[in-house]
Amino acid sequence: MIKVGIVGATGYAGVELVRLITAHPEAEIAAISSVSFEGQKLSEVYPSYKFLNDMTCENQDAVVEKSDVIFAALPHGLSQELGKKCIDSGKAFIDLGADFRLESEDEYAEWYGGKFLDKELHAQSVYGLPEFFRDKIKGKKLVANPGCYTTCSPLAIAPAIVNGLIETKGIICDCKSGVTGAGRKPTQGSHFPELNEGFHAYKVASHRHTPEIEQTLSKLSGENVTITFVPHLLPVNRGILATVYADIKDGVSFEQIRKAYEYYYKDEFFVRLLDDGSCADIHNVRYSNFCDVSIHHDPRANKLVACAAIDNMVKGAAGQAIQNMNIIFGLDEKTGLVIVPPAF
Amino acid sequence: MIKVGIVGATGYAGVELVRLITAHPEAEIAAISSVSFEGQKLSEVYPSYKFLNDMTCENQDAVVEKSDVIFAALPHGLSQELGKKCIDSGKAFIDLGADFRLESEDEYAEWYGGKFLDKELHAQSVYGLPEFFRDKIKGKKLVANPGCYTTCSPLAIAPAIVNGLIETKGIICDCKSGVTGAGRKPTQGSHFPELNEGFHAYKVASHRHTPEIEQTLSKLSGENVTITFVPHLLPVNRGILATVYADIKDGVSFEQIRKAYEYYYKDEFFVRLLDDGSCADIHNVRYSNFCDVSIHHDPRANKLVACAAIDNMVKGAAGQAIQNMNIIFGLDEKTGLVIVPPAF
Amino acid sequence: MIKVGIVGATGYAGVELVRLITAHPEAEIAAISSVSFEGQKLSEVYPSYKFLNDMTCENQDAVVEKSDVIFAALPHGLSQELGKKCIDSGKAFIDLGADFRLESEDEYAEWYGGKFLDKELHAQSVYGLPEFFRDKIKGKKLVANPGCYTTCSPLAIAPAIVNGLIETKGIICDCKSGVTGAGRKPTQGSHFPELNEGFHAYKVASHRHTPEIEQTLSKLSGENVTITFVPHLLPVNRGILATVYADIKDGVSFEQIRKAYEYYYKDEFFVRLLDDGSCADIHNVRYSNFCDVSIHHDPRANKLVACAAIDNMVKGAAGQAIQNMNIIFGLDEKTGLVIVPPAF
Amino acid sequence: MIKVGIVGATGYAGVELVRLITAHPEAEIAAISSVSFEGQKLSEVYPSYKFLNDMTCENQDAVVEKSDVIFAALPHGLSQELGKKCIDSGKAFIDLGADFRLESEDEYAEWYGGKFLDKELHAQSVYGLPEFFRDKIKGKKLVANPGCYTTCSPLAIAPAIVNGLIETKGIICDCKSGVTGAGRKPTQGSHFPELNEGFHAYKVASHRHTPEIEQTLSKLSGENVTITFVPHLLPVNRGILATVYADIKDGVSFEQIRKAYEYYYKDEFFVRLLDDGSCADIHNVRYSNFCDVSIHHDPRANKLVACAAIDNMVKGAAGQAIQNMNIIFGLDEKTGLVIVPPAF
Repeated sequence: MIKVGIVGATGYAGVELVRLITAHPEAEIAAISSVSFEGQKLSEVYPSYKFLNDMTCENQDAVVEKSDVIFAALPHGLSQELGKKCIDSGKAFIDLGADFRLESEDEYAEWYGGKFLDKELHAQSVYGLPEFFRDKIKGKKLVANPGCYTTCSPLAIAPAIVNGLIETKGIICDCKSGVTGAGRKPTQGSHFPELNEGFHAYKVASHRHTPEIEQTLSKLSGENVTITFVPHLLPVNRGILATVYADIKDGVSFEQIRKAYEYYYKDEFFVRLLDDGSCADIHNVRYSNFCDVSIHHDPRANKLVACAAIDNMVKGAAGQAIQNMNIIFGLDEKTGLVIVPPAF
Repeated sequence: MIKVGIVGATGYAGVELVRLITAHPEAEIAAISSVSFEGQKLSEVYPSYKFLNDMTCENQDAVVEKSDVIFAALPHGLSQELGKKCIDSGKAFIDLGADFRLESEDEYAEWYGGKFLDKELHAQSVYGLPEFFRDKIKGKKLVANPGCYTTCSPLAIAPAIVNGLIETKGIICDCKSGVTGAGRKPTQGSHFPELNEGFHAYKVASHRHTPEIEQTLSKLSGENVTITFVPHLLPVNRGILATVYADIKDGVSFEQIRKAYEYYYKDEFFVRLLDDGSCADIHNVRYSNFCDVSIHHDPRANKLVACAAIDNMVKGAAGQAIQNMNIIFGLDEKTGLVIVPPAF
Repeated sequence: MIKVGIVGATGYAGVELVRLITAHPEAEIAAISSVSFEGQKLSEVYPSYKFLNDMTCENQDAVVEKSDVIFAALPHGLSQELGKKCIDSGKAFIDLGADFRLESEDEYAEWYGGKFLDKELHAQSVYGLPEFFRDKIKGKKLVANPGCYTTCSPLAIAPAIVNGLIETKGIICDCKSGVTGAGRKPTQGSHFPELNEGFHAYKVASHRHTPEIEQTLSKLSGENVTITFVPHLLPVNRGILATVYADIKDGVSFEQIRKAYEYYYKDEFFVRLLDDGSCADIHNVRYSNFCDVSIHHDPRANKLVACAAIDNMVKGAAGQAIQNMNIIFGLDEKTGLVIVPPAF
Repeated sequence: MIKVGIVGATGYAGVELVRLITAHPEAEIAAISSVSFEGQKLSEVYPSYKFLNDMTCENQDAVVEKSDVIFAALPHGLSQELGKKCIDSGKAFIDLGADFRLESEDEYAEWYGGKFLDKELHAQSVYGLPEFFRDKIKGKKLVANPGCYTTCSPLAIAPAIVNGLIETKGIICDCKSGVTGAGRKPTQGSHFPELNEGFHAYKVASHRHTPEIEQTLSKLSGENVTITFVPHLLPVNRGILATVYADIKDGVSFEQIRKAYEYYYKDEFFVRLLDDGSCADIHNVRYSNFCDVSIHHDPRANKLVACAAIDNMVKGAAGQAIQNMNIIFGLDEKTGLVIVPPAF
């Protein structure tokens, strides 16, 4: 059994990790930590876990010591030091935060206002979006787990961009996220009466996931991709829908695009390419690690419209982190993640 | 007092008209009709109206006879005959359906599969989006009240397009609507357990409001505009948010665009241009005739992102219809429509 | 025009008062205050009010000075001093807090931990539930506006208790409230992801509204009534449903009870007694001052089950406060409050 | 592996069975049937099941033939014949409908309007609420799986009633259910805009689950128990909260009651007795087979208030059915049902 440690276990990504690891046949939770709730039981913070996980939150050091792999769900800036400690101790480290996601320190400085504390450490890290970078993850010990928007947006158009079927200029990612993406801390914007029956964009063209999506699309295309990314807040608990718009290249037919998607995703268990006429719906991937993708043609403007739906807390956070753990430890990637999304 | 008749009063747009007319100081409901509920009281269908409107649903003829102005909320195809009857009787006719919205019979045939039964009648009609076509509505008796998506999408970018500040090619309208837009009839897709906690696109690049938005943008720009329009279904009762993307023309600054918006909407009571940094939210316009507009700049891709939020059943249907009635009858356009959107 | 001042205008009850007074034909807002937002515009706190109320929050003294009637929506304990100041200045004072609701200082001490600062002042106050105490409100200047649970629970069974048709022992009030009742301040319990799709009781048999309901029922019955009161939290914005259970007295038929209800409420505009077979629904009273009442018979246990639905922020707070203002100022009680509850 | 057949697989209880059996380590789905969707894939009806269950709906006979145990989720009246066929073929039969729940044919006739087609068959059946009747289920082949309200209401007060600590007269079950309890078929009442933001009672003191709850409470108490049962409809997908009121017998302390609960449920994995001060919340049991129970004292009226929360589709339907299957087949009762309820 893989011994799992979770740092930041009482945040939403952390507690979701606990839920998924509990059902994982090859891993078990060795220790959890939380700055806010140190000394308290997880089930006191989340009563739904009563009798299923009554572990007490310890400190980070205890977690590192007791675990083979440490998952960190921390505010950005705090993972670099922890990551170093884990790697130095020979442990695997999977970071659900942003510290290791961007390869360019300049971009990290621009969007997060920080710097790389240990450049060698960053050089060892790998970006953990398995559908694209599986081969690079194998054998690594330091994984930067992607963000939620940055998982579904590239998954929506990868086959088209990899095969050079769309223009890389002018791509628009119009994304809509459930409110768990904003975390557990109550705010005016997440206060029930003010979010319920509401819907709005936020951080228009200025969200920190922008350079991360661009980094992935640039790698996939071999070009320098700049996108327009606009996130919106949905009055639902879970899920992200990315609606991505791109110009189809002259001479490329929609049938070619569909075939490219079919081929690209034919062996990807977690990506479900929907039939023509169906639209990806966040309702259908909740609580699971699936990404449902639907593609659509606007023949009048000759655009590709690609929709990708994920559960922001599973494929967009905890589930993908476990998928990365499975790869690192040589398990079948699906282990512990074959979950039927509930019908309601 | 203006005597108002409502044909199709038990549908969502119809019953919303009843609500708003009840509070209108210069109009009163003379008669209502409903094919499905003829002979029944409105308050039997909608118990919230008990003691406030206990009128019995009559037939169309009775409504026409008793009214100065007839509002029709009918499935498309059924308004043409009724409109003719009203006009022939010297009554005003405000159609909340689609029959008179498109000026081109070819487009009507292509998107709705019907034809113009009386071309002269169509020639007399005017498209009732007052913020753009107020002067043409005055003195008319036959108004085609715009659809919901077709109200908020143009309002989002009119100042930019009228002033030639954006490219007219490549405009994308990514719209999200509350479920009342789909009407009162229960369907699997509007069944609570399947819509709740869900979100998806539908009729991607094939929704009937496409040519109507294009018609308005073409008029405003003087060019032949083709857009990409993708509607999505929100798990909320009311509201539409349109997020519209357009390329800013070379040499145009975002400051110029903002000034153009300020000038264009300075006297429009129902359009509230938000300050920089704010995002239009459907929560803030519910139950009212307001359209909140926020504009945003993506300097990296040099795009304008414009958001417009309306209540799809008020500014997107019944409220705008009353705004048109006010114009036709020479009232202050705001009469009966100065409603504070509730804070929650 | 009555000049209205609102102390605590940025809380949910306060801002709802602003909304309703804006539509009131005989009253206008003279000044508003807020401790948290002094110096800021109300529309900065609630963007939905933009251009409709852009007043700046002042301090309490300014509000008292400029107004004929002061509404206070303050945490308990803070209204006594303000009330005194208003009365001493010859102004009317309507308190939406709890300070003047209980006639017994002992009960106030027991449930709220405070005492009556000025017993004479308390003696001048009247409990503002117009359907029961209308005659006592007339001519008064100091009104204790009832709480939300304490409005709907008595309205559900008053006709039965007044007419001695039910046992006064063993009455159970099982109440369910929308979340606005808990106020504007974000908490873990009102954080969207934790309230959404949830439902639970709280403060079981220990909620502060208990003695207030008992006070009203005791007055109505002439007996000393003790109830069991259990509130629950609904994942909706607005509305309270009270389901009240009582034993029908031997020899009393359900027909007698129905007749008693019909007679008791026949002239009450704001109480809508539903027909047999209908159930009161919070959906049908939202945004309005109505209280829908349905009564049901359990013949097997010979119990009366009475349901009452109100909008907790209107009939349960701001609307009833305006109803009281109308009475005090000699207006028709319905003035400004004839609002059609929206169908959706 | 146990071969499982599901008749009525496309209803909500049926499709939930598919979800849970898919994760069961000792059982697998052999065949499914559906009258409405015969010949179609389950994943066409529920796209969330795509690639996870793409079985085609067959007819009942095929299901019976291929399976060791048949679960039936059928409208009442249709299970008797199917049950007979299964038993005659030596298969186990677990009925999620009402046909075998009531032991008294008179009560069945009164509440359901039907009769027992085969009295011997009924005599073989057992009522499958394992926490009370586990010993009787063992070795049986025909199980009447309880309804949702009828599971949580007795679980809320069983320890008090079994130990004679409360009066059996005057018990009130005020229950609130999520909308999946009403099934998959769209109706006006489950149409999103009309249910959302609403809440109401229905079938007051006349719901068919009444005699079933009474049957269980009568067995537990050894007395003839009559209750008052009032169900309400919550605007959530899943969950039932039962708030049960009972008079505490003279001389019984609340401490005695708490001890009785602790003892009675000490070995029941699926019943989680909450600590004093906590309230059972449907949020904390969603998607799981748990029943959270909290008990409260009203010392002023000397009443016990007991709350029980279940997922109506799991412990209230499919999960409990699997619990029964585990018992019948000699498995650990928890097999396949140790599920962490998600924190959000």
